[in-house]
Amino acid sequence: MVESLKVGLLGLGTVGTATAESLLSPNPAHALLKEITISKVGVNSLDKPRGVQLSAGVLTTDLEGIVSDPDIDLVVELIGGLEPARSLILKAIANGKHIVTANKAVISRYGEEIYQAAEQAGVYVLIEAAVAGGIPIIRPLQQALSVNRIDSILGIINGTTNYILTKMAAEGTDFAEVLAEAQQLGYAEADPSADVDGYDAADKIAILATLAFGEQVNLEDVSCDGIRQVSAVDIQYAERLGFEIKLLAIAQRDETGLQVRVHPTLLPKNHPLATIDGVNNAILVEGDPIGQVMFYGPGAGGGATGSAVVSDIMNIAAMLKSSQQVNPLIKIPQHPRSQLVPIQKLVTRFYARLICVDRPGVIGNLGTCFGKHDVSLESIVQIDFNNGLAEIVVVTHNVEEEKFRKALEEIPHLKGIDQIQIPSVLRVLREA
Amino acid sequence: MVESLKVGLLGLGTVGTATAESLLSPNPAHALLKEITISKVGVNSLDKPRGVQLSAGVLTTDLEGIVSDPDIDLVVELIGGLEPARSLILKAIANGKHIVTANKAVISRYGEEIYQAAEQAGVYVLIEAAVAGGIPIIRPLQQALSVNRIDSILGIINGTTNYILTKMAAEGTDFAEVLAEAQQLGYAEADPSADVDGYDAADKIAILATLAFGEQVNLEDVSCDGIRQVSAVDIQYAERLGFEIKLLAIAQRDETGLQVRVHPTLLPKNHPLATIDGVNNAILVEGDPIGQVMFYGPGAGGGATGSAVVSDIMNIAAMLKSSQQVNPLIKIPQHPRSQLVPIQKLVTRFYARLICVDRPGVIGNLGTCFGKHDVSLESIVQIDFNNGLAEIVVVTHNVEEEKFRKALEEIPHLKGIDQIQIPSVLRVLREA
Repeated sequence: MVESLKVGLLGLGTVGTATAESLLSPNPAHALLKEITISKVGVNSLDKPRGVQLSAGVLTTDLEGIVSDPDIDLVVELIGGLEPARSLILKAIANGKHIVTANKAVISRYGEEIYQAAEQAGVYVLIEAAVAGGIPIIRPLQQALSVNRIDSILGIINGTTNYILTKMAAEGTDFAEVLAEAQQLGYAEADPSADVDGYDAADKIAILATLAFGEQVNLEDVSCDGIRQVSAVDIQYAERLGFEIKLLAIAQRDETGLQVRVHPTLLPKNHPLATIDGVNNAILVEGDPIGQVMFYGPGAGGGATGSAVVSDIMNIAAMLKSSQQVNPLIKIPQHPRSQLVPIQKLVTRFYARLICVDRPGVIGNLGTCFGKHDVSLESIVQIDFNNGLAEIVVVTHNVEEEKFRKALEEIPHLKGIDQIQIPSVLRVLREA
Repeated sequence: MVESLKVGLLGLGTVGTATAESLLSPNPAHALLKEITISKVGVNSLDKPRGVQLSAGVLTTDLEGIVSDPDIDLVVELIGGLEPARSLILKAIANGKHIVTANKAVISRYGEEIYQAAEQAGVYVLIEAAVAGGIPIIRPLQQALSVNRIDSILGIINGTTNYILTKMAAEGTDFAEVLAEAQQLGYAEADPSADVDGYDAADKIAILATLAFGEQVNLEDVSCDGIRQVSAVDIQYAERLGFEIKLLAIAQRDETGLQVRVHPTLLPKNHPLATIDGVNNAILVEGDPIGQVMFYGPGAGGGATGSAVVSDIMNIAAMLKSSQQVNPLIKIPQHPRSQLVPIQKLVTRFYARLICVDRPGVIGNLGTCFGKHDVSLESIVQIDFNNGLAEIVVVTHNVEEEKFRKALEEIPHLKGIDQIQIPSVLRVLREA
C-alpha cells in the first residue's frame, strides 16, 4: 500500500452518508482512518442536497467510471438492489479493486460468483455490513468461531418484523394495524414484503449459513414463511403457554443434514432470544466446544451499518499495510454447493390453533388422529368458546414436519369433527 | 511462514488440554488447523495422567527450554499466575516468538511491558482468551468497533459472582450459604477472594478499557468492591423497586474523564444485562455511531476458553501466511498512560438501606440531610419494622459520590435519628 487507501463510494443514502462522515471526520476514532481518502462518490443525481460536504469533483454520476478508475483501490457498494450493483462489483473486482458491500441481496444470490472473481483477482470482498447492521458477526464467525464445529445459528435478523411482533405482543393489536403504524413511523417500507414475508431474513441467514457451515447455500432452497399469518390471539395463547413468538432465521446441522429456514417460532420465555425486543437484532451461535454465544445490537440504521462498513474498509487498509497477499482467514473462500434438507424432513415442535363445533369427544378424536401419525402431544388445551365452537390449541413434542402435516390433513375428515378451521400453524423451537 | 506453524504450549490444565485436543483433532473444524503442530508442552510433572495423547518427547518439564527453542514459532502461555508466566512470555518474545495467552493477571499488570517488547521484536501477542472465555470481545473491539468512539463498557465478566448473585436472588439465601454451595460444586475456589472481592473482574476490565479507550489503565487505579456486602434482603428490596443486583465491571468516559471500576450495581430489570444469569458472561459496549452492542456467552470453561486460544493461534497462522509483518489492527499498540477519575468524583445513583429507631419525622430528617448535600432522592421508603426499629431504603438520582458519602457521614449526628445503622450502600446504574 502507498500512503493512502483510495476509496470509491457507490451510493450516498443513509449508510453512504454515515460512511462518508466517518471517513471525513477531522478527528477520527482510529489513527488508521487518516490513511483512507474518498476519491469519488457515485450517485444518481448531482443536484440532491447531501448530508456531507465533499470536495469539488468527488461527486459523480459516472458509477462505471469509479469501478474502472485506476486511482481507486477499494470500491464500497452501497446502492443496494441487484443491478447494477452486481455488475459494478464484478467490474471493480476485474479491475483489481477490493470490495466492501452491505448488499445482502447481491451477496446471498451472487456471492459464489463474486467470491470466485475475488479469488482470481486476489482482492478482498468484505461484507460485515450485509448482516445485522453494526453487530460484528461475519468476522467473529470467520475468525473467532471458525475453530468450532457450528451446530446452529438462530437469529432475529430483521428489525421491522421484530418491532411489529413486539408491538403486537405488548398491545394485543393485530398484524395489519401494527404494520400500518410501523409504516407511518418509517420502521416499515411502503411495500413491506421483503421484511414481513421473511425474504430479507432469508438473504441474511443464507449468507451466515454459507460462512458457518462451509457450504454455499442456494437462496432458493431456503424455506421462508413471514409473519402475516401471526395473529394477536396466537401471541396471547403462546404467552399463556410460556412462549414468545419471534421471526427466527435458523441454520442448523444435525444427523439429517443442513437446514436453513425462516419462520415465526415459539420460543420458551427463558430463551436468550425471547427477550430481544423492538428493532434490535440478535444472533445466537451454538458450536462445539464453545457452547452458546450471542451477539446483540442495532441491526440497521445509518450509524450502525456505517460503522460496519468503515471497519471493513479499515481492516483492508490494515491488512494491505503488512501485505499485498490476501489473508486466508479474512477472505471468503469458495465453498462446495450445499444440499439442504427439505422442510418436510424438519424435526421440530408445532403449535396449532383449531376451531370446530364443541362436542364431547373432540379432544379425544384429535388426540387419536395425532397419535396415529406419530405426533406426540405436549399439551392440548380447549381455550375458548364462541357460538357453540371450541377453540383448541395443540403443542407437540419433536416430530417430523411431514408427519404433522399429514395429521392436519386428516383432521377435517375425522368423525365427530365438524366445521373445522385451522387458522394457525406455527413452529415451536425444537426440544434439545 | 514455512509449511507448519510450530507451537510450544506452557501448561496442560483444563484450557491447555482443550487447546491441545483442538489442535490434535484428526478432523479439525478449519483447514488451517492442519498447518499447526504442537512441538512441546511444558508441565510441572511428567507423571500426572493427562486427558490428551501426545507424541513421545512432546511433554517436558523444561519450560525455559520451550521459550528458547529455535524450532518453536509461537508460545501459548496457559500456566496462569504472575511468575514464572511473565518472565516466560518476555523471554519467548525476546526470542522472536509470537504469544497467545489467557493470563488476565499478567496482561492487566504487565501488559504495557509485554506489548512494548512485542513491538520491538515484531511479534504478535493475542489475548482473546484472557477476557470472557470463549466470547469474542478483544478482536471485535480492535477490528469492528474501533471505528467508533467508545462511551462505555459494562460487563458481567466474572461467572462465579454472577452464579452466586443469581442463586441468592432465586432462593433468597444469603451470600455465605450460596458461596459454600458454589465451592462444593466447583464454581468457586477454596480461596474465593479473587472472584468475590472483584479482583478477577478488575483485571479484565482494565484490559478491556485499555483497548477500548486507547489509554494504558493502571490496575491499581481501578476501584474495586466485591459482593460480600450484598445481602439477600438487599436483593429483595432491589427487586421490589424494579432492579436486579449484578457485579458490574464498568469503564466509562464522560466529561469528567475515564473511570474504571468494579462494584455490585442495581440495574433496571429491562436493562440488557439484567437477565444474564448463572455463570454466563456478557459485555455491553456503547459507542458512537454504533449504539449498544452486546456479546454474551460462556465466560469460562476449558472448551470455551480453549476455543478463544485456538482462534488466536489460527489467526496468527493466517496472518503469517500472507505476511511476516505485523498487522497494525491486530497487534496491541502501546498506549499513553491513563489518568483515571477517582471514585469520589463518580456521578451515579445510590441505594442505601438504613435502620434506626422508628419515630415520627425520621424520613423528613433524612430527606433534609440529603437535600443539604445536594443529594436528590428518587424514593425513600420505610420498608419494615422490627422491635421499634424502622428499615428505610433510599434510592437517589445521579449524584457525585463524594456528596452522597458526606450526607451519609452526617446522618448519625442528626437530631431525632437514634441507633442508626447503614448496613448497605450500593451503586445504582446511573441515569442517562
